[in-house]
Amino acid sequence: MKAVVYEGPRKVSVKDVPDARIEEPTDLLVRITTTNICGSDLHMYEGRTSFETGRVFGHENLGEVVEVGPAVSKVKVGEYVVLPFNVACGHCKQCEKGLTNYCLTMQPVPELAGAAYGFADMGPYQGGQAELLRVPYGDFNALRLGEDAEERQTDYVMLADIFPTGYHATEMAQVKPGDQTVIFGAGPVGQMAAYSAMLKGASRVWAVDHQPDRLALAEKIGAIPVNSAEVNPSEVIKDATLGLGADNGCECVGYQAHDPQGHEDASLTLNGLIDAVRFTGHLGVVGVFLPEDPGGKEAQNELEAQGKVPIDFGMMWFKGQTMGTGQAPVKKYNRALRDLIAGDKARPSFVVSHEIDLAQAPDAYNNFDERNDGWTKVVMHP
Amino acid sequence: MKAVVYEGPRKVSVKDVPDARIEEPTDLLVRITTTNICGSDLHMYEGRTSFETGRVFGHENLGEVVEVGPAVSKVKVGEYVVLPFNVACGHCKQCEKGLTNYCLTMQPVPELAGAAYGFADMGPYQGGQAELLRVPYGDFNALRLGEDAEERQTDYVMLADIFPTGYHATEMAQVKPGDQTVIFGAGPVGQMAAYSAMLKGASRVWAVDHQPDRLALAEKIGAIPVNSAEVNPSEVIKDATLGLGADNGCECVGYQAHDPQGHEDASLTLNGLIDAVRFTGHLGVVGVFLPEDPGGKEAQNELEAQGKVPIDFGMMWFKGQTMGTGQAPVKKYNRALRDLIAGDKARPSFVVSHEIDLAQAPDAYNNFDERNDGWTKVVMHP
Amino acid sequence: MKAVVYEGPRKVSVKDVPDARIEEPTDLLVRITTTNICGSDLHMYEGRTSFETGRVFGHENLGEVVEVGPAVSKVKVGEYVVLPFNVACGHCKQCEKGLTNYCLTMQPVPELAGAAYGFADMGPYQGGQAELLRVPYGDFNALRLGEDAEERQTDYVMLADIFPTGYHATEMAQVKPGDQTVIFGAGPVGQMAAYSAMLKGASRVWAVDHQPDRLALAEKIGAIPVNSAEVNPSEVIKDATLGLGADNGCECVGYQAHDPQGHEDASLTLNGLIDAVRFTGHLGVVGVFLPEDPGGKEAQNELEAQGKVPIDFGMMWFKGQTMGTGQAPVKKYNRALRDLIAGDKARPSFVVSHEIDLAQAPDAYNNFDERNDGWTKVVMHP
Amino acid sequence: MKAVVYEGPRKVSVKDVPDARIEEPTDLLVRITTTNICGSDLHMYEGRTSFETGRVFGHENLGEVVEVGPAVSKVKVGEYVVLPFNVACGHCKQCEKGLTNYCLTMQPVPELAGAAYGFADMGPYQGGQAELLRVPYGDFNALRLGEDAEERQTDYVMLADIFPTGYHATEMAQVKPGDQTVIFGAGPVGQMAAYSAMLKGASRVWAVDHQPDRLALAEKIGAIPVNSAEVNPSEVIKDATLGLGADNGCECVGYQAHDPQGHEDASLTLNGLIDAVRFTGHLGVVGVFLPEDPGGKEAQNELEAQGKVPIDFGMMWFKGQTMGTGQAPVKKYNRALRDLIAGDKARPSFVVSHEIDLAQAPDAYNNFDERNDGWTKVVMHP
Repeated sequence: MKAVVYEGPRKVSVKDVPDARIEEPTDLLVRITTTNICGSDLHMYEGRTSFETGRVFGHENLGEVVEVGPAVSKVKVGEYVVLPFNVACGHCKQCEKGLTNYCLTMQPVPELAGAAYGFADMGPYQGGQAELLRVPYGDFNALRLGEDAEERQTDYVMLADIFPTGYHATEMAQVKPGDQTVIFGAGPVGQMAAYSAMLKGASRVWAVDHQPDRLALAEKIGAIPVNSAEVNPSEVIKDATLGLGADNGCECVGYQAHDPQGHEDASLTLNGLIDAVRFTGHLGVVGVFLPEDPGGKEAQNELEAQGKVPIDFGMMWFKGQTMGTGQAPVKKYNRALRDLIAGDKARPSFVVSHEIDLAQAPDAYNNFDERNDGWTKVVMHP
Repeated sequence: MKAVVYEGPRKVSVKDVPDARIEEPTDLLVRITTTNICGSDLHMYEGRTSFETGRVFGHENLGEVVEVGPAVSKVKVGEYVVLPFNVACGHCKQCEKGLTNYCLTMQPVPELAGAAYGFADMGPYQGGQAELLRVPYGDFNALRLGEDAEERQTDYVMLADIFPTGYHATEMAQVKPGDQTVIFGAGPVGQMAAYSAMLKGASRVWAVDHQPDRLALAEKIGAIPVNSAEVNPSEVIKDATLGLGADNGCECVGYQAHDPQGHEDASLTLNGLIDAVRFTGHLGVVGVFLPEDPGGKEAQNELEAQGKVPIDFGMMWFKGQTMGTGQAPVKKYNRALRDLIAGDKARPSFVVSHEIDLAQAPDAYNNFDERNDGWTKVVMHP
Repeated sequence: MKAVVYEGPRKVSVKDVPDARIEEPTDLLVRITTTNICGSDLHMYEGRTSFETGRVFGHENLGEVVEVGPAVSKVKVGEYVVLPFNVACGHCKQCEKGLTNYCLTMQPVPELAGAAYGFADMGPYQGGQAELLRVPYGDFNALRLGEDAEERQTDYVMLADIFPTGYHATEMAQVKPGDQTVIFGAGPVGQMAAYSAMLKGASRVWAVDHQPDRLALAEKIGAIPVNSAEVNPSEVIKDATLGLGADNGCECVGYQAHDPQGHEDASLTLNGLIDAVRFTGHLGVVGVFLPEDPGGKEAQNELEAQGKVPIDFGMMWFKGQTMGTGQAPVKKYNRALRDLIAGDKARPSFVVSHEIDLAQAPDAYNNFDERNDGWTKVVMHP
Repeated sequence: MKAVVYEGPRKVSVKDVPDARIEEPTDLLVRITTTNICGSDLHMYEGRTSFETGRVFGHENLGEVVEVGPAVSKVKVGEYVVLPFNVACGHCKQCEKGLTNYCLTMQPVPELAGAAYGFADMGPYQGGQAELLRVPYGDFNALRLGEDAEERQTDYVMLADIFPTGYHATEMAQVKPGDQTVIFGAGPVGQMAAYSAMLKGASRVWAVDHQPDRLALAEKIGAIPVNSAEVNPSEVIKDATLGLGADNGCECVGYQAHDPQGHEDASLTLNGLIDAVRFTGHLGVVGVFLPEDPGGKEAQNELEAQGKVPIDFGMMWFKGQTMGTGQAPVKKYNRALRDLIAGDKARPSFVVSHEIDLAQAPDAYNNFDERNDGWTKVVMHP
């Protein structure tokens, strides 16, 4: 089958690899019809992780079931399914509490937790930027779609990762109707966080970024754009809230946060968030941070190479804020978000900037990695 | 009246000050019969805050009501009351949600929140290490005690701060029956956190400290002592939990965390906690951290002088942990904890090491500040 | 001052009564500019309660502060405020948990709880269908409005009762984004419940009633109308949900539930709700039920005269449903809902059918009580 | 294999039936070493349900794994496991939220939900009062025990049903540290509810029953016994709480509630609970109620035959109480409760009155059904 294969820093190719196939009685085999490039693919693409050359990328996957293992009882051949990026077993201590993001079974390293398709350090699972995908524990992991699945794939594929991830940010930030919420980062996940806050009834949502195309997109869905290249976002938000700050907020950037000049500072958006949110406010951090980043651009910075981030913790404590962190448990949200799409109350495909063939992946990876103007979200159809 | 007055770094005196009195129609006047020295008094005593010389210390106060303002309707003269260290109005946006720890009314600086008796930067309220105390919004702030109040003052006075503060740590850490919980710091607040975890039904509680007298006390109430001067606490806890770590944990030390040799490192206990708690675990931080600490012992450390703490945030995010921070909203818990004392299910006075007269305050401050052996908690009777 | 006075069953008059005035140091005096007739006023109007003749009706009140007591510090003369129908003290065990609906202080009967303006069995507080209103504990009870208060009174006045009450129903029913929610009753409170469910992101909301004008209004705001005079509502909802039923639902009718022929049956809507909601679903009941109803139309029914309702409890238990009941704690929600109105995300005035002078009250009571076509909600301007 | 077989009303026999065996790739086969008789077995034993003659009883089961299906990966042959009475799939909409009590997959009737071993209307699964038990979806359903499993079977077997069921009652009643809690019913489940409330830190727990042996047992574990044959329990509890009532309470009796003279009244304990609990209190109902009970002793009572219960709903609404109902989701609690047993913080075997051989089952059923003095809980070892 054709697949997008990692060849080394900033290099992918589309080539033939052995067909994915049923390996365990609980597996599904899915013919991928839609698969996205994610911002976290870029961390691996840039060579800043241990992702092995020769592996296939792709953890945002949707397609049609073409074969099921003998122990699969719910999912049927011919159904369209969207797959959470989390690969989870369904029966460990974490999964049974709904914490499929930190499954203890599917992650082979005993002191770690959590698994994903085509992801560094998250188990041996091949990615879905390919014609076929093996899905372990298919009855547990696959979310079945309705009759409109095929025609609305660009909406439903967002259920694999970024829509639930943005939503999870707002859950950890405890966004409620009437809240005033700030989102740091207006990339695809930040857009989904802003969109989720509005779906939940927030009365005002600010989107902070320094890329004008992203700010324009956020404004289109109803958020208030704040250009951090031009103003101090925390001051703007405090001025709009009697000096108090937002009720809560989300960090959707991660350790590669950087100023408009490209200088990386992993504490930039975290400290902006602590500053912009009020006393006793809640913070949800879904931007990726790493325990260590030896290959970082700023490896001269000894702290960051060790995964340490000098956050304004004195201020955070003084304000009595809470913080939630980590990858999203996609299954916790994907049914409800699917129902919002099916009921025509949500259209997350607004974030898509490019729909391409799998063959165009190398060019798309390059453009997305350069953050070229207008390259917000790339959807591929194998 | 006699009161404990701050005279400058490491110097207090007991001397006459003007009598406290009713100033507003909603005030109470309380004759203090029991008042404690708190670890956070030491931050001020050491001259590391902006606490003004001439002010009276004391935010853990219990006594008998001797006068009530004309707008007080619930509390009666002659009743024994214990006063939350938080001074709160009861009607601002924060108080009406139960967040009396961050009251917007009683704190005079507009961009701040929260007030306390005898505390740096928390409003002009005199402390209760004195014969009399003025209590603003008395109906809201005072917790009335029952008939056993007078004889069990050393239990009930703990409701002013450390028992609810320790309990709050376990609330933010989401301790539930059956949990395995680690407490960093076995000072008075840490003891109360360990005790609270056990009251809630935790199946195992570890107390981490490097002072043998504190560890012995923790062991006496049923916690497992871990001496951080001798072992790596996180390793001990992981070894006891199949390598996974505790379910949740509390930080009860704060920015003056230091190794057995006295070297301060504000990230020491936070990073220990992140390491010792498992994936998706919850952390409650009630140890005090400051937005800035220019007078700190380690002011050579530029980061800490700015209130920045280089925490292992990459690891925290990777583990998907959550963190709650800040001072406790005492009123949220003090009724329930009072009922546990009254029902003889809790006896927090186990932490008291010294009961003294107000006149002995200077000596007690000195001993407590030196962390002299056996000086766990000092209770004074004016 | 002029006021709407209860003269006996189905009779009110507008006449002069002694001016309301400041009685306690914590009181406000408010010049009422907008006040509504509520469905629960009709229970009293019909003579089915112990409401005393000569008392003034009115618990949905908004106006301008004209005087403040000496212990009031937050609210200022000249501000527009909306008053929760709950009269609460702010410092009892219930109020400090946010349960102002069951305040122990303001209710004079020791074994009862909760107080309201102009309401049977809820304390001696005069109603606000008058030119002036005395507001006890003004700093705690009054919600201050912004600069648009005067011109948007018909929106903001809904914060006194029906908007928070409808919202409370959806809170007890645990409505979340993506849910499918059924509302029994499309009167003013039912409209607000349906509206609240949509503000929270429900994917589908059904409104069940047998009055075509009410169903038409519900449809206008986006709900799916179900006419219980024509179909079995539970069957309609099950058919639309693969036989499972709605995720959750609200009862917004109360003990006067009746069939299209006017036959009362207090179990009618409760049993409909139990039937229409799925296994483990959540039910919120804000329709009024009474501990006894000796004067009821159906007093021949011995059970109902004793406040007993023969609900399908076997089915409810078999389905593992939960149920929340009772009056709404308005203060818990009114700030957030105010912010939604101010941010132009909510316009609850859609429910208003009539805006009249106080003098027209007798005619309006009569029309509303008859449930005459189109009389959904009456707003009066004294 | 030997098994306890239902032969018709009030008749069971122990006889040979075909061996249980692996039927699906996800099954386990367990050699039962401990299995209990449950109060809900008696409903079937008495012939008041549709339980088929010839079927095997037993839904409280513990044993050793003797064979695993090819799709089982976690559980190993030789491990001791305790089986939740709920038979659940782990991947339906309900199970993935932790609602294994209302699994949609394992219940064969489409409009129903939930399955159990050896239970009327809950699927075709054979019971475990036998030498062998087939466990569907073994990795999901079985809870593995540690090295002390064999010697502490009478503690661990309580994890199959009554300990989590009693705990669930206290969860629905929202029992927290310091609470005053009333338990109606001091049978095995009521004992576990009282015990759970105390493990959670309740300050006072009342146990209400009219059987002296049960009250004596409740007193032994620290509850306050209230003999409903001698006093009005609600009055006793109100007198002890300033007239207010308990903070919350649990119903652990069910539709067969009866007075000391044996007269059944399904509303008896529910109405007692509503009366005994204070305003805004929470009620958890785990006693079994049925949608219909045509064979009931009181079938002359038309209401109850239809599953209708005339509860004091007017009073419940007036008090603003909440109510949770239904069978317990055992998996939600069994790990934590297992850890409490393993850590020696809980010893639920205190409830066991008789340990017998399987052969003695007919006699034990008879004694337990007669509620003979001292027959609290029967444990059988096949």
